[in-house]
Amino acid sequence: MELSKRVASFASAVSAMTYKRIEELASGRPAELYEASMHLIRAGGKRLRPLLVALSSKMYGLPLEVSSWAAASVELLHNFTLVHDDIIDRDELRRGVPTVHKVWGEGLAIVAGDLLFAKSYEALLRLLDYGVSYERVASAIRELTWAAITVAEGQAMDILFVSLERVSVEDYIEMVRRKTAALFKSSILIGSIIAGAPEEDLARLSEFATSIGIAFQIRDDELGLMADESVLGKPRYSDLREGKKTLLVLYALERADEVRRRKILNSLGRPGATRAELEDVAKTIVELGALEYSNKLAEEFVRRGAEALDSTNPRDAESREMLKELALYVTRRSY
Amino acid sequence: MELSKRVASFASAVSAMTYKRIEELASGRPAELYEASMHLIRAGGKRLRPLLVALSSKMYGLPLEVSSWAAASVELLHNFTLVHDDIIDRDELRRGVPTVHKVWGEGLAIVAGDLLFAKSYEALLRLLDYGVSYERVASAIRELTWAAITVAEGQAMDILFVSLERVSVEDYIEMVRRKTAALFKSSILIGSIIAGAPEEDLARLSEFATSIGIAFQIRDDELGLMADESVLGKPRYSDLREGKKTLLVLYALERADEVRRRKILNSLGRPGATRAELEDVAKTIVELGALEYSNKLAEEFVRRGAEALDSTNPRDAESREMLKELALYVTRRSY
Repeated sequence: MELSKRVASFASAVSAMTYKRIEELASGRPAELYEASMHLIRAGGKRLRPLLVALSSKMYGLPLEVSSWAAASVELLHNFTLVHDDIIDRDELRRGVPTVHKVWGEGLAIVAGDLLFAKSYEALLRLLDYGVSYERVASAIRELTWAAITVAEGQAMDILFVSLERVSVEDYIEMVRRKTAALFKSSILIGSIIAGAPEEDLARLSEFATSIGIAFQIRDDELGLMADESVLGKPRYSDLREGKKTLLVLYALERADEVRRRKILNSLGRPGATRAELEDVAKTIVELGALEYSNKLAEEFVRRGAEALDSTNPRDAESREMLKELALYVTRRSY
Repeated sequence: MELSKRVASFASAVSAMTYKRIEELASGRPAELYEASMHLIRAGGKRLRPLLVALSSKMYGLPLEVSSWAAASVELLHNFTLVHDDIIDRDELRRGVPTVHKVWGEGLAIVAGDLLFAKSYEALLRLLDYGVSYERVASAIRELTWAAITVAEGQAMDILFVSLERVSVEDYIEMVRRKTAALFKSSILIGSIIAGAPEEDLARLSEFATSIGIAFQIRDDELGLMADESVLGKPRYSDLREGKKTLLVLYALERADEVRRRKILNSLGRPGATRAELEDVAKTIVELGALEYSNKLAEEFVRRGAEALDSTNPRDAESREMLKELALYVTRRSY
């Protein structure tokens, strides 16, 4: 699925402005640290979370000139988690470039992630210079902090799941709700809070963003199993190799007969598993109908999210339509 | 040097209250993550930064009941940096217990550090429930963020220094100003800002805290070379083994003849260096007069800091006297 011209053009403006804001924050010494911190951000990314911030701000009348600082904040926080995730998962490639610890070593990569985390707060504080009230900035900081805590919890669950014998679909959804959807939710809330959205809309926006955040992660798992590596920017099957309990794997393990179950478990999380073995496991997972199942579940989350969004009362209805289009995109995107 | 009864008794109240606040923030799932995060905090520590917060708040009339949230915040931030430092330096022992990554593995330790970082903001936000204004809390958040950024820069310098041929004393002071003194400074500023200290006192308090922060780190380097391991809570000479360019090492390298220079450089940062070799290097460093030099420099920083403190206008002069005593303590402490 491609985005409409209207959304694509706004997304591109948000991406450029977010990058500009981040660049404004990213100078300091030692140079190596700042280079390491900016490495993944410069390599690209969809800038989806900044877009959620900018659209929800626009819904309630706050222009990108101001909301771009909040957009920069959530993108910084997101990239902080990626830098640390890559160390934890020992991933060597992301966005088509070597990961931060591969280039600068693990020690500096840990600190580079920490710096991005701190910078995400600096970005929010800049809102004070643009006339956003202390009270609203404090609320935005509360949301960012909640996201950082919740993402850490989700990340810990993801790590712990690898060595768990049995993980249920409910456990997986709970993990994804924290690891991925929490920052989607905070992005929407930060954008709307700094724009002065009415209190009663916040819960609806939360529901919307959480739902599409979960759908986004389900789609991410799918793409990790079937997308071209040129599009993925990293090796296919890395989730399988790392033993990640994705929705697809959980579903397949539940449906498989003993022979197939053994085959999957035999390769899952084994560093020495060959490419051919992993390909075979992926084929088995697909044959068991995991993709149909996960697609249906993702679509259901999107439907639920869209419903919540419909009940909001925005000042600018066009932004809401754009958010709805984005919701459809997260489950249908091919990268 | 022992602290006077007056300071020791206040310090103990601050320590207990800070710990209580942190415990209030430290429940969540998964349990392993929260256990890992709390591990070092439960193992103890001097709680010096909380004491700086509490005393500077008290100087301007804010009671511990309120300032303890800010005290918890800086202690959380401090422990976050320790958890990550230990991974980076591959240290296995701290405060007499195994480090977080030794117990829970590196992945969970990285995330446990990240969680503490996020929790340090949550602690500051609690001040809003105790009647501290949005504006003051925002200023405190700005200080905490500045410290986090600056500590990351200092930590990166520390990492990069290991592989640098030549590091000057000025470089070292600059590194320590960031890595250690920045959080001393922010602790004092956060404490005084939330208590409503007059603007003109803030620069003086900054000067005071920065100076004693540098002196504290110089003393820390000294203790790493000569203190009992039971007191250190970690192996002696770990700085030497990790190739750290401490003030003592820099001074010794500058003063040594070629033979001694070779001897020091030959063991510094060599993982295989024997205990006897490191003992010999330490002896050489001491013989070259490094301790007298570093002691003098630390005392000079304390003198300068105390002078700045004298020019403040506190509501409660007793707290200022207690801060001055603390300043003397940082260079004379034996652990």
